[in-house]
Amino acid sequence: MLYTEIPSQRPVTPVLDKIDHPEQLRQLEQSQLATVADELRQFILYAAGQSGGHFGANLGVIELTVALHYCFNTPNDRLVWDVGHQAYPHKALTGRREQLTTIRAKDGLAAFPARDESEFDTFGVGHSSTAISAGLGMSLARRYQKDPNEVVCIVGDGAMTAGMAFEAMNDAVAHDADLIVVLNDNDMSISCSTGGFAKHLAAIWEKGQSVNINAEGEAFLEDHPDWCYNSRLHESATDAADNLFKAIGFDYFGPFDGHDVNQLVQVFNALKKRKGPRLIHVYTKKGKGFAPAEADPIKYHAIAKINATKTTDKAVKSAPKYSDVFGQWLCDEAAQDERLLAITPAMCEGSGMVAFAKQYPTRFFDVAIAEQHAVTLAAGMACEGLKPVVAIYSTFLQRGYDQMIHDVALQNLDVTFGIDRAGLVGEDGPTHAGAYDYAYMRTVPNIVIMAPKDENECRQMLHTAYLYNGPAAVRYPRGAGLGVEMQQVLSTIEIGQAEVVAEFNLEHEEQITILAFGSRVAPAIVAAKNLANSHDLAVRVINMRFVKPLDEQIIREYADKTSLFVTVEEHAVMAGAGSAVNEFLAQAQIVKPMLNLGLPDTFMHQATHAQMLEACGLDEKGIQNAVEKAWLKLVQHA
Amino acid sequence: MLYTEIPSQRPVTPVLDKIDHPEQLRQLEQSQLATVADELRQFILYAAGQSGGHFGANLGVIELTVALHYCFNTPNDRLVWDVGHQAYPHKALTGRREQLTTIRAKDGLAAFPARDESEFDTFGVGHSSTAISAGLGMSLARRYQKDPNEVVCIVGDGAMTAGMAFEAMNDAVAHDADLIVVLNDNDMSISCSTGGFAKHLAAIWEKGQSVNINAEGEAFLEDHPDWCYNSRLHESATDAADNLFKAIGFDYFGPFDGHDVNQLVQVFNALKKRKGPRLIHVYTKKGKGFAPAEADPIKYHAIAKINATKTTDKAVKSAPKYSDVFGQWLCDEAAQDERLLAITPAMCEGSGMVAFAKQYPTRFFDVAIAEQHAVTLAAGMACEGLKPVVAIYSTFLQRGYDQMIHDVALQNLDVTFGIDRAGLVGEDGPTHAGAYDYAYMRTVPNIVIMAPKDENECRQMLHTAYLYNGPAAVRYPRGAGLGVEMQQVLSTIEIGQAEVVAEFNLEHEEQITILAFGSRVAPAIVAAKNLANSHDLAVRVINMRFVKPLDEQIIREYADKTSLFVTVEEHAVMAGAGSAVNEFLAQAQIVKPMLNLGLPDTFMHQATHAQMLEACGLDEKGIQNAVEKAWLKLVQHA
Repeated sequence: MLYTEIPSQRPVTPVLDKIDHPEQLRQLEQSQLATVADELRQFILYAAGQSGGHFGANLGVIELTVALHYCFNTPNDRLVWDVGHQAYPHKALTGRREQLTTIRAKDGLAAFPARDESEFDTFGVGHSSTAISAGLGMSLARRYQKDPNEVVCIVGDGAMTAGMAFEAMNDAVAHDADLIVVLNDNDMSISCSTGGFAKHLAAIWEKGQSVNINAEGEAFLEDHPDWCYNSRLHESATDAADNLFKAIGFDYFGPFDGHDVNQLVQVFNALKKRKGPRLIHVYTKKGKGFAPAEADPIKYHAIAKINATKTTDKAVKSAPKYSDVFGQWLCDEAAQDERLLAITPAMCEGSGMVAFAKQYPTRFFDVAIAEQHAVTLAAGMACEGLKPVVAIYSTFLQRGYDQMIHDVALQNLDVTFGIDRAGLVGEDGPTHAGAYDYAYMRTVPNIVIMAPKDENECRQMLHTAYLYNGPAAVRYPRGAGLGVEMQQVLSTIEIGQAEVVAEFNLEHEEQITILAFGSRVAPAIVAAKNLANSHDLAVRVINMRFVKPLDEQIIREYADKTSLFVTVEEHAVMAGAGSAVNEFLAQAQIVKPMLNLGLPDTFMHQATHAQMLEACGLDEKGIQNAVEKAWLKLVQHA
Repeated sequence: MLYTEIPSQRPVTPVLDKIDHPEQLRQLEQSQLATVADELRQFILYAAGQSGGHFGANLGVIELTVALHYCFNTPNDRLVWDVGHQAYPHKALTGRREQLTTIRAKDGLAAFPARDESEFDTFGVGHSSTAISAGLGMSLARRYQKDPNEVVCIVGDGAMTAGMAFEAMNDAVAHDADLIVVLNDNDMSISCSTGGFAKHLAAIWEKGQSVNINAEGEAFLEDHPDWCYNSRLHESATDAADNLFKAIGFDYFGPFDGHDVNQLVQVFNALKKRKGPRLIHVYTKKGKGFAPAEADPIKYHAIAKINATKTTDKAVKSAPKYSDVFGQWLCDEAAQDERLLAITPAMCEGSGMVAFAKQYPTRFFDVAIAEQHAVTLAAGMACEGLKPVVAIYSTFLQRGYDQMIHDVALQNLDVTFGIDRAGLVGEDGPTHAGAYDYAYMRTVPNIVIMAPKDENECRQMLHTAYLYNGPAAVRYPRGAGLGVEMQQVLSTIEIGQAEVVAEFNLEHEEQITILAFGSRVAPAIVAAKNLANSHDLAVRVINMRFVKPLDEQIIREYADKTSLFVTVEEHAVMAGAGSAVNEFLAQAQIVKPMLNLGLPDTFMHQATHAQMLEACGLDEKGIQNAVEKAWLKLVQHA
């Protein structure tokens, strides 16, 4: 069935409703599976409409999920979902169907598989390309324990370009491990952006041939004269029987139609007759069964709740998103300086680079999911006198950390990092939070690190970072700015210079100085005002701007007048920006009471961004309370 | 010529002596190149004997290096050496011949290519598998700048297994980049340890066929009926013309004999007629031309100086190396607990695991150069109730950082990390120093982090980490321990418990408390004693043992008596262990003068370990002086 609307009422799904455990699915006749798939699709359409969140990928794996749970003895056989934003159908079939409308909400289901949520979620994911490594670990552990159960990793074609997947395949062959990899290929077209691997997959299709498997587990070649033969690739088309996966040492089967649940069942059952590393190549359609998503899969990668209020939409609209501020700056800077090149590891839309990519196609480099490569590619470009800008999420830069240290910073190369999604990110949960970047970057020599108080300062800082002749990073949050006026002209900030942004009750002798970083400057000002109003003390807020180099001068300047220093940041307290301030005070032998506010030493489960900030006391009220408490304690002891 | 001895006198090399710039090499007749290669080999044998250092790989690339500089217009054409411990011949041909005996020494040549050393060193390396990314960056930058010069990346077969190399190849094809990759394959045998990729290379050889190229740049197949046909692989041997590199989209040429300088010249010249991504597969022999190294390439990967004094050797012998302590512990723990599995990313020897690998072959996993995979593989094993131990160098764990956060710590999985080469490492220089691990690990929730004061405590800590039901890391230095007595029984340390290891002059009221971490405990005790002897003050040294969780109790306990706290560690001061102490003091509102000692905010060039420690004031004398200075300043202000 092809649907055209997201239902606002729960659809009637009598067969699906009886499945609270995959064992109940396995007791059905194979002829009923198409019905299960259809009901599941309707249900996912409804549930995703209620919760918002990932969408297209989930619709694409409905038949695959049904066939996997039907053929494999889950949870004893392990299913390992890569990335995991395709796990909604899996959650629905494993006892979490009616909770699916709560996905991504506080106290609801996690956006991704989570080990503490269900025994069917064998491995927590969020970042791409980990499934084969994790699955191989399980497979080798089970072999060692003489436990013959199967391990099946389901990996998208996009995730396969990450080197980690290649490392794991290489190693699986080294151990002749009993492991099934399902390559869920949902892009039959040739996408330049994903490179040689995508071309190779396309070439396999072009050949019009698949490696099938019979009930005894024997492979045989099958011709498909009906498959398209007109592409420019045909001449160099690759034998399905002799391809990259075979070359690396996997048994290869496919390509197959990933929406033909009966063929999938036949193939999976036959595969169990074989041992060793096996790869099944199936094609699926993102958004399958929902007409608008089939037509525009990028737009329908994720959706908003269908009942989201207009008011919220409007509020968001009035202030630009930080990613859009980045994207606009990138275009403006590129117009002024021909040396600018921009790199993204597969996050063109998320990083706000669509306009740049269109305007400057020869200067735009989407390197696919390949963070390690992205950073060193930039280093190579900088060696030739160009000025590359790497747009990357804080949490993904963790994958390019070694490259940032050795390939960029050690050589003091002129690379600018636009670090998006820094701080808490709300619904995507802990795997997407950018909580550690100050810590892992500030120990690295030569890097300049900035965090803006608002979107206009973000633009200034990006320009400052770009002009700085060496590695420089600006880290900014997910979502919208504060709605401040944007300067069109590109201006800079002096490296290492902070600014006093608020002072209240300066007539009092007892003074608190709040050193605020990035997104926490604005709430710190409100907290300071409330504090000053309710106590007889002066409160000063400094927008520190730079985590490295720190403005030591301004701290020194106000140290004498200050009875209590406070640092506040949307980053782990441990090793963060406040910690840098502590180090300076120690080094300068300035001995003063200090309160460091930031993220606690725990992984924070998903909720809205506001709920998360409240939970860790980093909103206006939380900052005010924490400072007040520290102040009162200090006064008591005095 | 096959040599059997490392000459202690500089050999006579009349043709080589005339080459101070590759331009002079390029003016020679092609018929003279074999002589250049022979002289260069003799010279490298001599120079490496004088300096010590990497050896086998350098002898293996002599002809390749000569042919590359002969055919390509260096430095305008870019040579990018992967890893770089094969760059000695390159350094010798590019004006640094007579300095080669100083390699790895303080103020001498760097162990690896270094951009600030020569314009011929296009990219600084040290960690493997970065060359294709960097070279691609250069190539794309040059295309954008309309500069037609060639970029040639020279990559070993070992480095090709790292995912980063795959990411870069995938991206090179996406851009149809003009890039030559020389695959320097020096392992014709099938090594299980490097997995599917190694098997694939072997299968290409087994076919007895190469893809050659004529002077017009046209490819043609050439049969080699003399190549070995007896292997078990023959049946599945891969067409040279249809292999993994072709699959990913590279033009493939080879395999060729990498010691046939004339064929190499012919091939390189012909390749310049073609555009796009080209891969040339050559085989070379590690240690080529030096009989003992050809016979035992692993032993001759690197050599000691031939004139190293016996005394030094003896001193090293009396105390075991930390890597050997780790290896012994691993065997002992494995004997007691069947759940222990051990993982190394291609550092079996360096990490001290040879005995374990021999004793427990089914429990030993060398995953090749693949740090990302290594960490997540361990996570997968832990999901099945086993207890994996990952042995990894501090600097290489930077490549598995994201995996440590999300795949291990977020799921609180029971993985033990044995982190070797933590702190300064001497001659290998900044790319191999482990200066950032406290910082990047301690922000991550759930991880226990320890550092031993000596080799016996290292053993205890490894046992403690192993028994801890969650992620735990022990970081220990390169080289030998202190020579303390080793307890054979496996004992634990209470999590988060420090110990007072020295107290001097406790009768004085003015007290200094030194909180020392890991390798800095021993010199701190000496410094403390000297300080106490030369001033009227009490000095106490606490072996902190744990960076996380910190022993807050002990700090609190001594805070009242302490006039000056000192922290000392062999790790960056920034965000390090001392910084963790600062955070605790602030949080506990303990307001005291603090001196944080550790590595400075700079990349330290190679020297001996002792020289480096002295340079940054972390040896006994340095610690003493720094504390004294801080103390005097404090007294003056009081």
